[in-house]
Amino acid sequence: MARSADRSAQGEALSRAVWSVLAEQGLERLTVRAVAAAAGCTTGLVMHRFPNRQALLLHARRLLHETTRARVESLESSAAGPRAALRAILRQGMALDEQTRQEAIVWMGFLAAAVTDDDLIEEHRRNNRAWRARIERLVAAAAPEWTPERVATVALALITMTEGVAAYAAADPGAFPAAAQEAMLDAALTAHDLAPDPHRLASPSTCPELP
Amino acid sequence: MARSADRSAQGEALSRAVWSVLAEQGLERLTVRAVAAAAGCTTGLVMHRFPNRQALLLHARRLLHETTRARVESLESSAAGPRAALRAILRQGMALDEQTRQEAIVWMGFLAAAVTDDDLIEEHRRNNRAWRARIERLVAAAAPEWTPERVATVALALITMTEGVAAYAAADPGAFPAAAQEAMLDAALTAHDLAPDPHRLASPSTCPELP
Repeated sequence: MARSADRSAQGEALSRAVWSVLAEQGLERLTVRAVAAAAGCTTGLVMHRFPNRQALLLHARRLLHETTRARVESLESSAAGPRAALRAILRQGMALDEQTRQEAIVWMGFLAAAVTDDDLIEEHRRNNRAWRARIERLVAAAAPEWTPERVATVALALITMTEGVAAYAAADPGAFPAAAQEAMLDAALTAHDLAPDPHRLASPSTCPELP
Repeated sequence: MARSADRSAQGEALSRAVWSVLAEQGLERLTVRAVAAAAGCTTGLVMHRFPNRQALLLHARRLLHETTRARVESLESSAAGPRAALRAILRQGMALDEQTRQEAIVWMGFLAAAVTDDDLIEEHRRNNRAWRARIERLVAAAAPEWTPERVATVALALITMTEGVAAYAAADPGAFPAAAQEAMLDAALTAHDLAPDPHRLASPSTCPELP
């Protein structure tokens, strides 16, 4: 039991080290050696779990996927309706604070490495298609009268906008404060007629006519 | 004369080699050695002009900046008005064909390397702020009644959307065909009430009431 707990703690420390090197030092400094230094262990131990740079990148990308998936599912299940869920879920994909800024750096680093790497790119495509399908489902629920084509087009506009602003804000946080990102999201949701109903959001109990 | 022409041709070949390695092989394979192989010269010759990896990255980013600036200025000067210019200029920033897909890969590679590199990030921020200022100027001209705040918010929505879709399409061209990107751009311009006037675009001479 003790050895198994040790191994698990060691695995956690290695996992955190992979993330922090990529998120804080960047793709150019992501090496087995840097991960070993961050975890306070030998390069041999790192290589036992992550035999190469690709394995480090895949691990960071999967951590990102798990973190955002759990957050997004929690936001969806606690939202007042599809429009509120859509806004909350798009919002968490922007770079609004240190955590989401780190996530954007990991995303960009993985993507830059993957875009010309056949082994890595499938991971990106699979996750990105699931993300797109989720947003399309929410847009369709928020605007049930729309054609599937319009749903797909507007969903694409929204996911690429939040993706782009996360990259911009990660690279230049001073020029893209969180308030500007949120104002942009609200302007786009309003322009596409997908903004959450403010009454329903703020105080559902005062709207007896709603279900 | 001949030696100077040779040097210039050699400089061109090196410059093309830096671009093609980053755009076709990706950030992970961008090295002085790879550039020398692509240019068919010695690593010593490459290092004479580009002493390190940072210099290679800066060069590729500046090539990208020059190419897109020239294209954008040509599009703006030949456009039928600010709305047509806005659409044409945003359109060229998406990944619609092999050339713009390569540009997106270079952009992503540079950004991923720069985001944690104090020496490189200033280049990104300067170019990105100029880009944002250009789109704000066009949005303001296209919607002169808007407040500066609304101009800035909508300009940000449009530039981040085209930025995001370029990244998505570069990484998964089959899932993001050019027609879907253009439909998305038109949907966003229409939603924000910035779509070009189709009559004015198609045949300005049939609109005698316009200046």
